[in-house]
Amino acid sequence: MSISTELTARLGIKHPILAAPMAMIAGSRLVRAVGDAGGFGILGGGYGDRAWLEAETAKLTGSVKPFGIGFITWSLARQPELIDIALEARPRAVMLSFGDPVPFAPKIKAAGVLLICQVQSEEMALTALDCGADILIAQGTEAGGHGASRTTLDIMPAIIDFAAGRVPVVAAGGIADGRGLAAMMMLGASGVLMGTRFYASVEADAPEQAKQLIRAAKSGETVRGVVMDWSRKLIWPAPFTARSLSNDHLRRWSGREIELMQCADEVAVEYAAARAEGNFDIAAVFAGESVGLIHDIVPAAEIIGRIVAEAEQSLQGRRNSLSSLT
Amino acid sequence: MSISTELTARLGIKHPILAAPMAMIAGSRLVRAVGDAGGFGILGGGYGDRAWLEAETAKLTGSVKPFGIGFITWSLARQPELIDIALEARPRAVMLSFGDPVPFAPKIKAAGVLLICQVQSEEMALTALDCGADILIAQGTEAGGHGASRTTLDIMPAIIDFAAGRVPVVAAGGIADGRGLAAMMMLGASGVLMGTRFYASVEADAPEQAKQLIRAAKSGETVRGVVMDWSRKLIWPAPFTARSLSNDHLRRWSGREIELMQCADEVAVEYAAARAEGNFDIAAVFAGESVGLIHDIVPAAEIIGRIVAEAEQSLQGRRNSLSSLT
Ligand SMILES: Cc1cc2nc3c(=O)[nH]c(=O)nc-3n(C[C@H](O)[C@H](O)[C@H](O)COP(=O)(O)O)c2cc1C
Ligand SMILES: Cc1cc2nc3c(=O)[nH]c(=O)nc-3n(C[C@H](O)[C@H](O)[C@H](O)COP(=O)(O)O)c2cc1C
Repeated sequence: MSISTELTARLGIKHPILAAPMAMIAGSRLVRAVGDAGGFGILGGGYGDRAWLEAETAKLTGSVKPFGIGFITWSLARQPELIDIALEARPRAVMLSFGDPVPFAPKIKAAGVLLICQVQSEEMALTALDCGADILIAQGTEAGGHGASRTTLDIMPAIIDFAAGRVPVVAAGGIADGRGLAAMMMLGASGVLMGTRFYASVEADAPEQAKQLIRAAKSGETVRGVVMDWSRKLIWPAPFTARSLSNDHLRRWSGREIELMQCADEVAVEYAAARAEGNFDIAAVFAGESVGLIHDIVPAAEIIGRIVAEAEQSLQGRRNSLSSLT
Repeated sequence: MSISTELTARLGIKHPILAAPMAMIAGSRLVRAVGDAGGFGILGGGYGDRAWLEAETAKLTGSVKPFGIGFITWSLARQPELIDIALEARPRAVMLSFGDPVPFAPKIKAAGVLLICQVQSEEMALTALDCGADILIAQGTEAGGHGASRTTLDIMPAIIDFAAGRVPVVAAGGIADGRGLAAMMMLGASGVLMGTRFYASVEADAPEQAKQLIRAAKSGETVRGVVMDWSRKLIWPAPFTARSLSNDHLRRWSGREIELMQCADEVAVEYAAARAEGNFDIAAVFAGESVGLIHDIVPAAEIIGRIVAEAEQSLQGRRNSLSSLT
């Protein structure tokens, strides 16, 4: 069974489910597993690590299933040559998030590669459409990792109305099951992009302990802010902040960002050590509000299978309540 | 046409649409209009103004259509006798939000009146179910007026899973059109509660200028915080804050709450004067993130008619995409 949308047609996939380009966590292993299961995996090019990108794209080049490669745009702008490595791998799409896609769009389009832009406002959607974006992702504040402040329930219809049918719109942020996929389709989405749910998959390149923390976390136990970035001296441009699981470090510094910046050197040393040790009382596990819906660590194929079955059930259930129309 | 759910059956209404008990804005006029259109109007008893409550319930007593009466629970606790006035009006349901429903539940249940509790966490849902709530409303941070921090997309499935079918769950916060109703039904909601959309209705008891500001506001132009409450020396208990349209006063004081509290007397004088004058550069217009979806001020019956038609269209549209299953 499968749910066909404009998105599945455009990407040449079976299910309207995209796995987010989680920086270095979405490696070739996850991308391949998602693609094999009929979804669309997007390699997490992140800030741009050339060696990693070369190694991981090498494993994907010539892949039978379509796949994507994603970048953090403001960081890519500092080493624009990485886009060539990405395009050489012949992805079906390049996904740009968090920054100006304009400098990269012509090259991507000229290569016959689809351009996916993740946006958090109508202004960003306008820029993306103007430079030829083929697919928009409307990302809500529920999302794990970086994002902005408007909720998925707010930004999704806003971007749907703004795009006015010109391109398919995908929903991101807070979705981890088939109910979420079905709900987003009601809002007009052609599909969903999920990060946190795929983090807690067998194929994600992440420490087992981090995956277990996501599995165990309850709804409402994530926090969005700048503490985790500033603790590694990483100043993201506005309006972006990052959502992660709450932990001791976050509880200690949230609301004390000025002081944190004032002792950035010391904190950075402590934070780097914690990351190296895998001490997640201090180091961040980026994750979204959907953690409450995630109760196991399973293969990506199982995640996709379940979500499709659940979404069909939701749609089906309401088909019945609709047929009881009076 | 109508969409039948467990909620419509339980409340004896035609459409799964509830109009929120907006303090003194949802008067008997709105409640009656919503009821006549097949929805469920809930009188906005708010903090509890005896004269207002007596006058408005008098206009509803003996109403043919079922209706509800809502209170801000922590405030009701200060004048518990108001519940008797409410029950004498023979509402179908009493809705309690923001505080402990336990002291009031026995009397409401004994009167054969349904108890609706609006909740923002699993803990609150537990309390509500334990004291016999017949319907839960899961309210997300998108909501206009008071609420907490978790988004509708997070809290809705969380409460659905928590209630595990024991009672119908209604979604509130950020819903203003039929897409939203359809989406919430996919998440398992039996219906929706809307405040902001009904604020911008002909029958809401509010200044025309406030309604026009809601109509004109764009998505993303609301702010949640304590500034508007503290400006009138009203300290709500945690975890509640209020969402309103952004204005000069909010821009001036947001992030400076400590200072605001330190000069509370002066601010309160200025604020009270602004309210009296209807100066909404200073005074709050409580409204939710759904303002971006609201483009007109129309009769409640038209709001309900449109939403039902749109929701059916969304459900229908996906029925077609489902029948293209392969
Ligand atoms: C661990 C993690 C890392 C992420 N890294 C990136 C990234 O490098 N680039 C990007 O565009 N988005 C990144 N995201 C955000 C996703 O693109 C997506 O918007 C988000 O995961 C959707 O919300 P969800 O986590 O609730 O599914 C990341 C998300 C997570 C959870
Ligand atoms: C102007 C306004 C006043 C409100 N007053 C109350 C109230 O007195 N009691 C209450 O339970 N909820 C109140 N609410 C919240 C609603 O019950 C409901 O949760 C909310 O309106 C749903 O979100 P929406 O505004 O996006 O539709 C109010 C909402 C608004 C917009």
